[in-house]
Amino acid sequence: MTIYNFSAGPAVLPRDVLLQVQAEMINWHGSGMSVMEMSHRGKEFMGIAAEAEADLRELMGVPVHYKVLFLQGGASSQFAMVPMNLLRGKTGADYLNTGEWSKKAIKEAKRYGAVNVVATSEDKHFSYAPTQDQWKLDPDAAYVHYTPNETIGGVEIFWTPETGSVPLVADMSSTILSRPIDVSKFGVIYAGAQKNIGPAGLTIVIVREDLIGQTVPGTPTMFDYKIHADNESMYNTPATFSLYTAGLVFKWLKARGGLAAMENTNREKANLLYDALDATDFYSSPVAKENRSLMNVPFTLKDAALDEAFLKGAKELGLIQLKGHRSVGGMRASIYNAMPVEGVRALVDYMGEFEKSHG
Amino acid sequence: MTIYNFSAGPAVLPRDVLLQVQAEMINWHGSGMSVMEMSHRGKEFMGIAAEAEADLRELMGVPVHYKVLFLQGGASSQFAMVPMNLLRGKTGADYLNTGEWSKKAIKEAKRYGAVNVVATSEDKHFSYAPTQDQWKLDPDAAYVHYTPNETIGGVEIFWTPETGSVPLVADMSSTILSRPIDVSKFGVIYAGAQKNIGPAGLTIVIVREDLIGQTVPGTPTMFDYKIHADNESMYNTPATFSLYTAGLVFKWLKARGGLAAMENTNREKANLLYDALDATDFYSSPVAKENRSLMNVPFTLKDAALDEAFLKGAKELGLIQLKGHRSVGGMRASIYNAMPVEGVRALVDYMGEFEKSHG
Repeated sequence: MTIYNFSAGPAVLPRDVLLQVQAEMINWHGSGMSVMEMSHRGKEFMGIAAEAEADLRELMGVPVHYKVLFLQGGASSQFAMVPMNLLRGKTGADYLNTGEWSKKAIKEAKRYGAVNVVATSEDKHFSYAPTQDQWKLDPDAAYVHYTPNETIGGVEIFWTPETGSVPLVADMSSTILSRPIDVSKFGVIYAGAQKNIGPAGLTIVIVREDLIGQTVPGTPTMFDYKIHADNESMYNTPATFSLYTAGLVFKWLKARGGLAAMENTNREKANLLYDALDATDFYSSPVAKENRSLMNVPFTLKDAALDEAFLKGAKELGLIQLKGHRSVGGMRASIYNAMPVEGVRALVDYMGEFEKSHG
Repeated sequence: MTIYNFSAGPAVLPRDVLLQVQAEMINWHGSGMSVMEMSHRGKEFMGIAAEAEADLRELMGVPVHYKVLFLQGGASSQFAMVPMNLLRGKTGADYLNTGEWSKKAIKEAKRYGAVNVVATSEDKHFSYAPTQDQWKLDPDAAYVHYTPNETIGGVEIFWTPETGSVPLVADMSSTILSRPIDVSKFGVIYAGAQKNIGPAGLTIVIVREDLIGQTVPGTPTMFDYKIHADNESMYNTPATFSLYTAGLVFKWLKARGGLAAMENTNREKANLLYDALDATDFYSSPVAKENRSLMNVPFTLKDAALDEAFLKGAKELGLIQLKGHRSVGGMRASIYNAMPVEGVRALVDYMGEFEKSHG
């Protein structure tokens, strides 16, 4: 039975990548070592890391005046690292609040400065994103932070905010690499690896060079972007095996045509699923149409008493990890880059069958 | 050709563990998923994590009033987390200085409080460890920090310092799991995974419960031991695949008889190598006999002009990553748990041959 894994993260990885990791596990390219066993300062691993960075830069079109950092600690660490590095003498920053991850970023930023919430969608249970005309930007903010895709709520923002000379910061954990973006519009982009990049334990930070170098007092050395930038992410031992696997994912993306091609496939998958949700009142999507995420699709059954039966029947067909986040309930189908169209079709087919037998 | 990898870290892993990782890569125990693809909150991964913790507790004899945390960020992050969590209103802490890693820990601690260096071996190029009668302990120190094994200098302390009611903190990155220790003598033990535990990207912290809960102002949430203790290391997504691999290493250690058995093998390996160094003046060890590390063996050739030839000849025989740390030069053979006795014998044999042809 083919398994289709709809986990929100850690999430499905491309099967071809896993097969390559498996084939190279004991003896990488005749080195006699597993990548796990390589000194991070040896020529083999330095080559792996350099190639991963070059491929990521190519895929995302990262301009030369941006550093790409391969760190640890997840987006949760960035919630502190961003204010610690970007306040740069200012008293506070602007934050958009579109859901659970925005709230966590806001809560942590308040430890280091004043937070001006430019707009919030809490009034409608975070089911949409306020358009920019609703944002109350502070022209003196150190930066503007937002979450282009809320993994739990399934709310995605497809336009790029205009913030003038104030640096724009984005938590792209669950949208990075799903479609092309213009990196030059951002001051900092960060993302945990465990959705579209690779194994958990790796965090990618893309930061404009002029924003590096000034931290608030008491910032741990490991939370200083400058330390990692100056040492090419080798100040201490990085998550070497996760970075290697991420590098293979980057090559997989390049071979499939890059991010424009991924966007096409991702839109095809998302349309299949949202069309199925809209075609009946047996299922429904809580998210405003203009903000429906390409990556995370929460949905509910008309009768929540059927949830368990739905999940059980899905699992019997190999459609797994569909249970919604504990904070919102219902279902959630995460359909990251590595989820094939066939997986979404199998889910949509099952949804139709389930409605027939339980509707 | 059999490769023997003497890297100081990331380092050689048990071949049986790598083979199991390889075998389970695509489909872990019939789940249809790679461990990399599992939600960290799903029952499969929760089971993997719980088993890893139970096995580590059994191997090290961790008392019930200690928490075991699986974190990210390496020992370099602990250099800040230790003072941030353990100062608890005190003005400073005691540090022993026995080499490069001690110095890094001291430098970072100074950002958060006063550091009293209780003793230093800098006078003799960090080639020994001051005995406790030479330590000038401050009875009002928040804690006493030391580095039982200096990975670069190859200096190991085999006795456990007596610090009375002042908590003892140890960076055990390159000695953990190499021999039994009495955890109850310590307040905090921490270690990066990439030597004796598993892949880089995982950090283990063992902390006595009464030391958890008070941090200095400005401590990032991710640097608070309490957050991780209260959430059983699942506050955010942990380095799941590294933790899984570490769990397999713990089972490998248990199957080989645990840490007492490992100590026997490690002493056998170290003795082979130190005896070879002492048997001739062609080679020499810079470290005082009572502090010669069981894990990291730096040595020099009488004529440094022969270094390149030595390394080249070694590599031709599959003896790799023997070059000394750039800060000290010469050679370094790291002989962690996963290095078989045969690997050390092969090195000793080669050293004899090389001396015959170049002596």
